[in-house]
Amino acid sequence: MTLATTLKTRRQQLAQHLDAPVLLWSGQSTPRNFPANTHPFRTNSHFLYFAGLPLENAVIHLADGHLTLFMDDATPAQALWHGPSPTRNELAHRIGAGKALPLEDLNRFVDEQVATLRVQDSATVAQQKQLLNRSLAINKQSQQQDLALLQAIVQLRLCHDDHGLTEIRRAAGVSVMAHKTGMTATALNNNLTEAHIRAAMEQVIMAHGMTCAYNSIVTVHGEVLHNNHYHHPLGENDLILADVGAETETGWASDITRTWPVSGKFSSTQRDIYDLVLAAHDACIEMAKPGVEYRELHLLACRTLATGLVDLGILVGQPDDLVEQDAHALFFPHGVGHLLGLDVHDMEDLGDLAGYAPGRSRSERFGLGFLRLDRPLQAGMVVTIEPGFYQVPGILADKGNCDRYANMVNWDRLTQFSDVRGIRIEDDVLITEQGCDVLTAELPTQAHEIETLAAGE
Amino acid sequence: MTLATTLKTRRQQLAQHLDAPVLLWSGQSTPRNFPANTHPFRTNSHFLYFAGLPLENAVIHLADGHLTLFMDDATPAQALWHGPSPTRNELAHRIGAGKALPLEDLNRFVDEQVATLRVQDSATVAQQKQLLNRSLAINKQSQQQDLALLQAIVQLRLCHDDHGLTEIRRAAGVSVMAHKTGMTATALNNNLTEAHIRAAMEQVIMAHGMTCAYNSIVTVHGEVLHNNHYHHPLGENDLILADVGAETETGWASDITRTWPVSGKFSSTQRDIYDLVLAAHDACIEMAKPGVEYRELHLLACRTLATGLVDLGILVGQPDDLVEQDAHALFFPHGVGHLLGLDVHDMEDLGDLAGYAPGRSRSERFGLGFLRLDRPLQAGMVVTIEPGFYQVPGILADKGNCDRYANMVNWDRLTQFSDVRGIRIEDDVLITEQGCDVLTAELPTQAHEIETLAAGE
Repeated sequence: MTLATTLKTRRQQLAQHLDAPVLLWSGQSTPRNFPANTHPFRTNSHFLYFAGLPLENAVIHLADGHLTLFMDDATPAQALWHGPSPTRNELAHRIGAGKALPLEDLNRFVDEQVATLRVQDSATVAQQKQLLNRSLAINKQSQQQDLALLQAIVQLRLCHDDHGLTEIRRAAGVSVMAHKTGMTATALNNNLTEAHIRAAMEQVIMAHGMTCAYNSIVTVHGEVLHNNHYHHPLGENDLILADVGAETETGWASDITRTWPVSGKFSSTQRDIYDLVLAAHDACIEMAKPGVEYRELHLLACRTLATGLVDLGILVGQPDDLVEQDAHALFFPHGVGHLLGLDVHDMEDLGDLAGYAPGRSRSERFGLGFLRLDRPLQAGMVVTIEPGFYQVPGILADKGNCDRYANMVNWDRLTQFSDVRGIRIEDDVLITEQGCDVLTAELPTQAHEIETLAAGE
Repeated sequence: MTLATTLKTRRQQLAQHLDAPVLLWSGQSTPRNFPANTHPFRTNSHFLYFAGLPLENAVIHLADGHLTLFMDDATPAQALWHGPSPTRNELAHRIGAGKALPLEDLNRFVDEQVATLRVQDSATVAQQKQLLNRSLAINKQSQQQDLALLQAIVQLRLCHDDHGLTEIRRAAGVSVMAHKTGMTATALNNNLTEAHIRAAMEQVIMAHGMTCAYNSIVTVHGEVLHNNHYHHPLGENDLILADVGAETETGWASDITRTWPVSGKFSSTQRDIYDLVLAAHDACIEMAKPGVEYRELHLLACRTLATGLVDLGILVGQPDDLVEQDAHALFFPHGVGHLLGLDVHDMEDLGDLAGYAPGRSRSERFGLGFLRLDRPLQAGMVVTIEPGFYQVPGILADKGNCDRYANMVNWDRLTQFSDVRGIRIEDDVLITEQGCDVLTAELPTQAHEIETLAAGE
């Protein structure tokens, strides 16, 4: 199926959900330290979904299944510095747009009914607001048609078509190679820092013409959940937690985490916890199928972890009671995963409106509040499954937690696991009619397989 | 000398140039495809010059040589997700700030006299405007004190102190390694694309904990001057033009270009043009010393190229006449270089106010209009020297140029050089009291040395 055919089907589906005409902006690049030195441009994801190509400073109009592309052809000066580029008409042909017009014609397509969504760069947001003469925030004052558009797009983008899945599989394939390379690089060299492993992994992504879907986490301090530092040396007894994912040229993401021993061999305590996290991971994948509530997968991971931690003597009590009281969240404070698609947290620019089914909202509970997805699974969804175990000082040293969980944690026993700062195992999972398909299954998860790769054998 | 001592000297120098108190903002990270998925943060360069550390969402106040740091300590929630971070007081100590205050105290430091410069991210610009209650554009309506600040900062940043030079040398050293690795990678593999070479080069930068100072150019289409595509396969007869430079953790840049043959061996035509570009490069470096006008270096490069192109039979006429009529610019349409420092085009956020001496402005001439620097050289300046030769279709096929230069170009002879699409040789040069010092001299420039590296020998 050609890109134009895919996009036509998406437009027709949109038209079934929405009467209003739609304008979607691609956005434009943003300055780094001065205007001519920009961050690498990332096209808006909603635009990409319906336009298919990473165009900059372009707009599409969708109405009744018809597509119009607005962009300006390169000027001779631009062609001089940036080389030849396809014309507006050529691009329109590739994406099946019936019409191709310069940006100045946009104002003829604006009326009171037109729906849109706000992009991320402020220069384009200013253009959107000026053209439409209204606010674009997503809140109670939002225009009715913008909310209708948002809901329609969520319905479409929740479940992926063949084109989207092909792209996600491509991204996953390259991410798998990146992780294998990272493990092998650990074995090949001495006196490395986290930066070396990160560089080895991202090189693979870049060499394939892809980019990183998010800022990589490659750290011996896996207990720092959002860690974008890479300066620590790799200690002989450390674990490396690497959360690195590729994004294809047209914006489709993957998201993989593996944790491996620097030495190529888990200590017995590291191995115990690794196997437990893997058990939670495997249990969720076993259970994932259409109709299952994603929140139930999360709770399954919590119960599996709690049970294992009781067996290891770290938690004390009945696993179900412990989960009820969020004791698992002392060691697993985040959700078991999220939607994956054109964004690594798919559609998170819409807040929780994609992740949470209508009428649902975030829990106040310590053990549930960070869950990014609370919907029944449907065939065609891609979600991550990413349980973990972390010893976060900010959680474990918190006075309130120490008091509240005084009798549920064997703090002495816990000290024996001090070489396990953070472990996460994350795969990308497509929900199918029959159950699910792990798109990142080429990358091993078993401890002995990880050891073999990390030992360079 | 410690960072705090360096910063103290910079503040004292600023106080000599400026009476007004100064506020400088670090800026904050900007969203990529959704708010939580940001571009890697780059601290504002003026802030970095006086604060020395890549802090996010911080402000400094400078008055009479005294430094006050404004930033908020991490909340417990931030510490939980982002790990431990130094406190405001610890950071203030490292940079020699006499006081450290929360951001909410900023408004006590605002008065009619305070000078500032606009940052690049719009969220922070909005904060600046709100706090100061005025426009921050650099134009005829600018506040007097902002213009005075700007001129004072240009005076300081034009010539580098030991700390800045040490950092630029570090960046240059890593960039040299990256280029050597790129050449070697060309030899080691088959069926490569530009992306593979780019990835091999950027891996070196990343493994050293540095980042790219700008979006790399790694291309077999060197004639596309601003080329950020990397998908072309490497053809046996192609040249690779790689313009890749590292930036240190605290923002100091380097900027190197080399051009090498995919095969490891220049063709005779490629070699002829390569040696000519190198002659222009060497002539400029030979002439660079305090007091010399940078524009004269540019014109020297132009004359050297014109002379060589006459010798090769591509241009027809007297070299001086040809340069007078901008015939050289058919093949060398850009300037011979620019300032280098905390920005790869140093202080280009100030427009031409840094690059052009007071009272000077860009030429309308085809052969001079793209010159980014027009000042007499001073000891302590770092500039790039980067002559090139390109066959840009947008220039050579332009009807006006064909008519104007009909008798100055031997178009038949030129066709024999069709395997030379683009060559550039760029080094980073420190102006010294005695002359100059090529900071990137570790990377060979001679054709036979380049061939040896590219052949993997």
